[in-house]
Amino acid sequence: MKQENQVAVHPLAQFAATLKWGDVPEAVQRKTEDLWVDWFGSVLAGQSARPVQSITRFALSQGPASGPCEVIGQRTTTSPMMAALANAAASHVAEQDDVHNGSVFHPAAVVFPPAVAVAQSIGASGEQLMAACVAGYEVGIRVGEFLGRSHYRIFHTTGTAGTLAAAAAVGHLLGLTPAQMQHALGSAGTQAAGLWEFLRTAADSKQLHTAHAAAAGLMAAYLAKDGFTGAQDIFTGPQGLAAGMSTDANPAKLTDGLGTRWATAETSFKWHASCRHTHPAADALLQVMQQNNLQPADIAQVTCHVHQGAIDVLGPVVNPSTVHQSKFSMGTVLGLAARFGFAGLHEFDVHFQSPETVAVREKVQMVLDAEVDTAYPQRWIGKVTVQTSDGRTLHGRVDEPKGDPGNTLSRQEITDKALRLAAYGSQVPAEQARHAVARLWQVALWPRVTALLA
Amino acid sequence: MKQENQVAVHPLAQFAATLKWGDVPEAVQRKTEDLWVDWFGSVLAGQSARPVQSITRFALSQGPASGPCEVIGQRTTTSPMMAALANAAASHVAEQDDVHNGSVFHPAAVVFPPAVAVAQSIGASGEQLMAACVAGYEVGIRVGEFLGRSHYRIFHTTGTAGTLAAAAAVGHLLGLTPAQMQHALGSAGTQAAGLWEFLRTAADSKQLHTAHAAAAGLMAAYLAKDGFTGAQDIFTGPQGLAAGMSTDANPAKLTDGLGTRWATAETSFKWHASCRHTHPAADALLQVMQQNNLQPADIAQVTCHVHQGAIDVLGPVVNPSTVHQSKFSMGTVLGLAARFGFAGLHEFDVHFQSPETVAVREKVQMVLDAEVDTAYPQRWIGKVTVQTSDGRTLHGRVDEPKGDPGNTLSRQEITDKALRLAAYGSQVPAEQARHAVARLWQVALWPRVTALLA
Repeated sequence: MKQENQVAVHPLAQFAATLKWGDVPEAVQRKTEDLWVDWFGSVLAGQSARPVQSITRFALSQGPASGPCEVIGQRTTTSPMMAALANAAASHVAEQDDVHNGSVFHPAAVVFPPAVAVAQSIGASGEQLMAACVAGYEVGIRVGEFLGRSHYRIFHTTGTAGTLAAAAAVGHLLGLTPAQMQHALGSAGTQAAGLWEFLRTAADSKQLHTAHAAAAGLMAAYLAKDGFTGAQDIFTGPQGLAAGMSTDANPAKLTDGLGTRWATAETSFKWHASCRHTHPAADALLQVMQQNNLQPADIAQVTCHVHQGAIDVLGPVVNPSTVHQSKFSMGTVLGLAARFGFAGLHEFDVHFQSPETVAVREKVQMVLDAEVDTAYPQRWIGKVTVQTSDGRTLHGRVDEPKGDPGNTLSRQEITDKALRLAAYGSQVPAEQARHAVARLWQVALWPRVTALLA
Repeated sequence: MKQENQVAVHPLAQFAATLKWGDVPEAVQRKTEDLWVDWFGSVLAGQSARPVQSITRFALSQGPASGPCEVIGQRTTTSPMMAALANAAASHVAEQDDVHNGSVFHPAAVVFPPAVAVAQSIGASGEQLMAACVAGYEVGIRVGEFLGRSHYRIFHTTGTAGTLAAAAAVGHLLGLTPAQMQHALGSAGTQAAGLWEFLRTAADSKQLHTAHAAAAGLMAAYLAKDGFTGAQDIFTGPQGLAAGMSTDANPAKLTDGLGTRWATAETSFKWHASCRHTHPAADALLQVMQQNNLQPADIAQVTCHVHQGAIDVLGPVVNPSTVHQSKFSMGTVLGLAARFGFAGLHEFDVHFQSPETVAVREKVQMVLDAEVDTAYPQRWIGKVTVQTSDGRTLHGRVDEPKGDPGNTLSRQEITDKALRLAAYGSQVPAEQARHAVARLWQVALWPRVTALLA
């Protein structure tokens, strides 16, 4: 009853509820648009993947036959929750969606799908949508940073922190008060889930994690709007997220620089179509090969000097049997990069098991590196030592892999990437995709969010 | 691809997929029917609670305008997932649903709602429904026992283990192969969630936890049916449930007595509508009063010989000011039991503060008892010493509180309880509820599961 007065509102809930697009610095606004267009490529790239089709079939079977929300690329509409399920599942397939390094969190996949669905449902403006997405990014990234490395060792942060990110974005669109936003974050946090165990047998859970986060977070926000209450301190309470799912949680991260530090702008684009943990080493290897004019056959051995997280996630994958699994194989990624200068979706599909790729793969090893590990996750340093077949020892080092804020993509590169992804994974005609992407760049001017693929 | 051959199927998945109603001993079959009718009372009792109404409104707004599945007590139908959300939310409100002591897990709330929805959707028989629910109980209870006390300290086991219980029940109905069942349990486990933090501010999350478990588990099973894969070992894998959410997990519990020990039959009914710590003493007092034909006015003093946990939880509640608080007042519970032979929802609402109840309440004290404390929590012994107003000293002792397997409810008592709960919380006319309960007892004979409230 008096909840609004009795309970101190957490600054993160306050921020997420009250953020305005006009308060977001222009550079961050432009970066948000970059992330938005980049996401559109990923949601289309994932359309044809079997796990996505399963989740989409399920979502459509449980929702209304039509509704206000677009199942992107599917010529179908449904309710907000079901559209969020399907679109979030699709967004995280191609391993090309964005990533925030410090939180090891992929915001686009869990923020844009529920936000777009709700914006379409309530007729929000493009500016409202973008502001809500910034709220989602800022919340999700900070929750991921808060939960820390111990959390990420077991839990897929995009699934867990993603639930709160989705709630923040949807809650912002629904106009939640700060106290309601706190309830939404409480209801989201108590549904936060996602375990890495699926990687061991290359199971489909990754798509389920983003779908679940988007749908559960969306539900949390709608419930809060309807007066449903959640924990007051889901973050640091004695039976909250940190107590249950982290041993190194840092509460200061939750509010770090709120309103001055824009975590959204720290988000990286993915260039190679693989697990982000492989990118620094791939770029460092490419540097060595380009500077020394090496061919794949010149490589006798590659030692990747990596952070512990890379070993945890990639280490179990020694002989990948599926394309998806091969994206978590450091050796495969380096093999494709060495051969093609880039490990893209097409390169994985066609060449992940070819003898030339496997030949490089088998020469790649990972070792823990103190400098790289200490810098991680704030900085993802790429360091490789290459032994050449003629006996040289060469060192490569990249301080920011391509796509990171200091080595970012141009708008033309983002457009090209989005169109490549659309062509790769969806049935959307090229001309329609080009038209859609051109429109997406203007999102902040839209009076009303309608279908992205008109 | 070769998943079915490559992967060893966990015995629990094997059991959940292949269990047949005919393999269930007759006594366990009858107990399952008891639990089924008992659950029906709880789902109706929760109908009018504000958090349930919020979740139901949300579910109906996201699903189709009508569908094959009943939103029980609401004269509305929808899709399986949305019906599971609404009905599971309602099932765990009145604190009268069943409980398995060893796992501290409330199976009915997360097993029956998704199973009934799916049975209605696919036209399963009553026998198929009951077999599926036994699979759900056996899985959920064992997962709860496996996750252990360290898990329960932070996580609401009914929300976490409940997700797997729901998946097992729905997966059984969908006819999953053992390998598919394993995938379903993997997809359920990676969505398992529910933190106790909400209790600190009496927030609404308890209803969200059962709703989420039912819906997420249902989704996991449908996806598995469609070929969607989950972790091979979501239980004990290095990034699985135990790794992430328990420090004292016991893998032997997962398969303990599978097919010979029927955990379903160990499940307790709740009789009094109060904190379970009050039940043993209330039953012991009723024994003394019945055996000696006492009236409340004959009581001069009641000393309850209790375990430390009862003193910890109930001790602070000396002058309860709300109905909810009075359910944690030993004196109030004994006062209502003495007056009405039973402390039910209605008795609390109307009489928790009436002078006759308070008169007994003020004569009740608790003292720590070594025997009772040592037996706890395996056995909940009730011991009271009663001083009568005519100077007698009488002793009561109950080794199993009413509702436990050794002191279970008769079918008449279960029927009466269900009808009491229906009248308490729902708008369902008494005659319709009586008719429905009479039909529910025949569930195993139903050729097809249709609406429970015709």
